[in-house]
Amino acid sequence: MITLITGGVKSGKTAHALKLCDAYTGKTYVATAEAFDEAMQTKIDLHKAERDASWVTIEEPVSLHSVFDNAQEQDVILIDCITMWLNNLIYKQLNTEKHIEHFLVRLAECGKPVVLVTNETGLGVMPANPDACRFADELGKLNTKLAAMSDEVIFMISSIPLTIKGAKK
Amino acid sequence: MITLITGGVKSGKTAHALKLCDAYTGKTYVATAEAFDEAMQTKIDLHKAERDASWVTIEEPVSLHSVFDNAQEQDVILIDCITMWLNNLIYKQLNTEKHIEHFLVRLAECGKPVVLVTNETGLGVMPANPDACRFADELGKLNTKLAAMSDEVIFMISSIPLTIKGAKK
Amino acid sequence: MITLITGGVKSGKTAHALKLCDAYTGKTYVATAEAFDEAMQTKIDLHKAERDASWVTIEEPVSLHSVFDNAQEQDVILIDCITMWLNNLIYKQLNTEKHIEHFLVRLAECGKPVVLVTNETGLGVMPANPDACRFADELGKLNTKLAAMSDEVIFMISSIPLTIKGAKK
Repeated sequence: MITLITGGVKSGKTAHALKLCDAYTGKTYVATAEAFDEAMQTKIDLHKAERDASWVTIEEPVSLHSVFDNAQEQDVILIDCITMWLNNLIYKQLNTEKHIEHFLVRLAECGKPVVLVTNETGLGVMPANPDACRFADELGKLNTKLAAMSDEVIFMISSIPLTIKGAKK
Repeated sequence: MITLITGGVKSGKTAHALKLCDAYTGKTYVATAEAFDEAMQTKIDLHKAERDASWVTIEEPVSLHSVFDNAQEQDVILIDCITMWLNNLIYKQLNTEKHIEHFLVRLAECGKPVVLVTNETGLGVMPANPDACRFADELGKLNTKLAAMSDEVIFMISSIPLTIKGAKK
Repeated sequence: MITLITGGVKSGKTAHALKLCDAYTGKTYVATAEAFDEAMQTKIDLHKAERDASWVTIEEPVSLHSVFDNAQEQDVILIDCITMWLNNLIYKQLNTEKHIEHFLVRLAECGKPVVLVTNETGLGVMPANPDACRFADELGKLNTKLAAMSDEVIFMISSIPLTIKGAKK
């Protein structure tokens, strides 16, 4: 069971993802963000404060496929978020395509509930910056792949979940 | 009864809000925009031309809580828009948090139909400008609070209303 | 029967539009993009590769009304995309309003299945650039007109089609 939660900034994606995991006992939270500045550190700390003691946290900014090894004994895996992971891959000039492929293979075969958080970034006027355009393109293509593999896709608007694929809960 | 109408620029938010108020007699339109340049004045004038004589207009760019006093005798209050109000609070370096809290308290207790217009601004690539990022964050958080309080939330796409919370009309 | 497909960049709009035309025999693909740089040429070539031999391609960046003459014998017309057409009109400083009006008249009277692809560009923070703001405004207004004329409007999110007007297929 794979659930993809997508939406804009501050649209309640993480809060909804955490809520979907409530019923499970062994919960792994995979944080992909790196604290490269103070604003990001504050954001990470705020997100941490949202999670209670039932969560185990793994920080994995790059080798996202490896979390399926590390979370073997867990009942549910929440990955937050795909956007930041893709950003890290591009920023560090790694082989984005290979990393994505590796992750998708492991995701497909993992056989346990996974909740993925991502962003929609292609619904505004594109900035003049070509890197921004490339990023939106790459993320759009990755989201397409993830949504196709997901049993349920939820689009968050003002923290209201809109189920666009799969059964409504 | 609180209705929140959200969406992008030129997505028909105001036109739909006006339509939702058609059935009422005493109608108050609260304009939060200030004409700080010619383009904005044109926009305000165009919006004014969309409203017939049955509307009373209040211009209130900052102290939005006060409109519940001024519109006491009215049957419906349309606030257009939350985005511009938040923009004014931030631009004038006022105590945003306090203003929002004050407004939300009055909104919760007002007991009459209120239609709120807001924007989604978090679905594009974030500009490099940190103020833009802060604005999208603040608006996302405010929209979450408003949507939670609303009986109905409508997302406008190309002027097609999509009801994402509450009963369809 | 007019179908409008809207959404962000890389949200699967073209792929879904092509799929909707599968059942027809005589298929015309109207490309509005001009290869003004290498990145655009690559994009055009990629789109071409998505179409099989059953498609006739017309390249028409400006006089979009004329495609209804050229595609007279066809069973279905796919116009990809409205966004690029509007961009061309504005960039070439043509009479945008007149071109749009001309196109809408011909579209309304054409009497055959037409699939239109467009973009949502108003759901992000507006760039400081006034041309970008004008573009998002103009496109929002044009999308409103097209959606009002369409029998079906589909909003693409991560390549998941969400029917927001008309019957689900």
